[in-house]
Amino acid sequence: MENITNVMAVEYKDGKVYFLDQTLLPNEVILEEMKTVEACWEAIKKLKVRGAPAIGIGAAFSLVVASRNIIAESFEDFYLSFKKAKEYLSTSRPTAVNLFWALDRIDKKVLESKHQSVNVIKEIILKEALTIQKEDIEVCRKIGEYGQEIIKNGMGILTHCNAGALATSKYGTALAPIYIAQERGIDVKVFADETRPLLQGSRLTAFELFMNHVDVTLITDNMAAVVMQKGWIQACIVGCDRVAANGDAANKIGTYGVALLAKAHNIAFYIACPTSTIDLTIQTGTEIPIEEREQEEITCGMGKQTAPKGIKTFNPAFDVTPNHLITGIITEKGILKPPYTQAILNLFK
Amino acid sequence: MENITNVMAVEYKDGKVYFLDQTLLPNEVILEEMKTVEACWEAIKKLKVRGAPAIGIGAAFSLVVASRNIIAESFEDFYLSFKKAKEYLSTSRPTAVNLFWALDRIDKKVLESKHQSVNVIKEIILKEALTIQKEDIEVCRKIGEYGQEIIKNGMGILTHCNAGALATSKYGTALAPIYIAQERGIDVKVFADETRPLLQGSRLTAFELFMNHVDVTLITDNMAAVVMQKGWIQACIVGCDRVAANGDAANKIGTYGVALLAKAHNIAFYIACPTSTIDLTIQTGTEIPIEEREQEEITCGMGKQTAPKGIKTFNPAFDVTPNHLITGIITEKGILKPPYTQAILNLFK
Repeated sequence: MENITNVMAVEYKDGKVYFLDQTLLPNEVILEEMKTVEACWEAIKKLKVRGAPAIGIGAAFSLVVASRNIIAESFEDFYLSFKKAKEYLSTSRPTAVNLFWALDRIDKKVLESKHQSVNVIKEIILKEALTIQKEDIEVCRKIGEYGQEIIKNGMGILTHCNAGALATSKYGTALAPIYIAQERGIDVKVFADETRPLLQGSRLTAFELFMNHVDVTLITDNMAAVVMQKGWIQACIVGCDRVAANGDAANKIGTYGVALLAKAHNIAFYIACPTSTIDLTIQTGTEIPIEEREQEEITCGMGKQTAPKGIKTFNPAFDVTPNHLITGIITEKGILKPPYTQAILNLFK
Repeated sequence: MENITNVMAVEYKDGKVYFLDQTLLPNEVILEEMKTVEACWEAIKKLKVRGAPAIGIGAAFSLVVASRNIIAESFEDFYLSFKKAKEYLSTSRPTAVNLFWALDRIDKKVLESKHQSVNVIKEIILKEALTIQKEDIEVCRKIGEYGQEIIKNGMGILTHCNAGALATSKYGTALAPIYIAQERGIDVKVFADETRPLLQGSRLTAFELFMNHVDVTLITDNMAAVVMQKGWIQACIVGCDRVAANGDAANKIGTYGVALLAKAHNIAFYIACPTSTIDLTIQTGTEIPIEEREQEEITCGMGKQTAPKGIKTFNPAFDVTPNHLITGIITEKGILKPPYTQAILNLFK
């Protein structure tokens, strides 16, 4: 199989747009060519493309696909169809911030270019999509490079959920320090929590690390404590969905537990994320809204009913790790250290 | 559906022996009549009957079934066939201590009765099997009664894996205090960890509590920290496979993590087990051998491949919780409190 850093979540190759169908992983690696905006919409809707940065990039390339299919002579005609496509795409995952951010960024570029010919505008859209992707690659790479500060040859690293190449453009966030270490010939041993209920750790993280020949061991979530007890883990690195102004971090359910277990074993616990994940409008983690998801994810996780029908469940998608459990926040601008309120203020000064 | 405290793991009713096929839970509740020793062997082998005490009771009733099918006039002829059945049954789960214990106990009774007629001996075997079951019910009930000391109306209790009625004769060990509380009209809210990889918490614990109308909420293992953070849990109660002389306790993988999370939230953490689980020949938990199981349990847990083929895994079936994390050990002789070495010595004095 190809190296996954070449099989990216979203890929532009030989003039064509491809999305990797992540719903088929780890069993099938299918790069699907996107020919219509409807296909793009469905791919985002059905989580074929997932992970905040990857959704943004996917949305940008969806507008590339959409614009190519627009037949128009005048800007006005073109923009009418473009706007329709943009609004349609925005309904694919209405809570994904990166989706809107990318769509708006392309829209702005189009409006700035209204005096150009339609064909030139189509080229400008492609260029902007490629720029969005390139910027994300650079941000991830920088996270990986700054992350080297905490990497030591032979160390054990535990990660949770997927904050890897598949969730971004390349490298990922939590996995970036691991990939950069590998590039530099530094060996690390990764332990991947499978991350119930949706098993992103098993289906995606274990998959992409394995494909990239990184030494990875898959465990169930409830084995994290034991691998720490055995002395196999020297650091935990996880991604992040939102960081509050005080450094509290919301991430996939189970992250808070990992942070507590790390503390109990005196193991460093790092969050890795771009600075765009820091939300200064939110003072503390308690203000971060936590999505609760349908109970089937727990009761028939893998297509098979494994709990009594009618059972009560609690299924929060995320949890919040308080800042005092976080050793550092690895960003593309360096590793933030406590006290986070000050470190974050300095960053945005 | 029937109340599960009436649908027991092993049941003797109207002169017939029934095993509940736990491999079909929670989707089907099938009480299978055991007519041959081969059927009994297969039921134990294939985990239709599981849980240490239930296996012992199942083995005893397997000898009831076996002895009934023996056609013999003399004790010698009878005992030859009996011994053959006993040896055959001992191959069903060769590492299950309770299996051998029960088989040997019946064997001893048979030898003591060698001067009786074969028909009387068959009755003696039945009586002994019923006694083994009755004793287990009494032990579990006492655990439940002593457990009331820590139960308060309206409290939240987190449990892990299955140490309930399905693993014993009735009541269970960890779940006994909950069932006795229910009998007495005391309300508790139970949170059941699903307990990957084999989901005993989901398939068995959630099932039996739900069937018994206990307020139970099913969560994935990595949600335990969050329900504690929310203040919903006032105590953890889990079963136990082996307790060392110093109070270190081996139990289903994930228990150690629950104990650490409980400590981080100042929540009491209890082990519930019969005193027969305490192994004085083992000084500390580090001496307890931990079974590692096949990787398919993690990589295709529910019949579907959810991890890349060829991935490395680590799959210990148990972990050891050090004594300093244990608030008390609830037994049929009372709740043991630290220091455990002394408490356990006093118990066996």
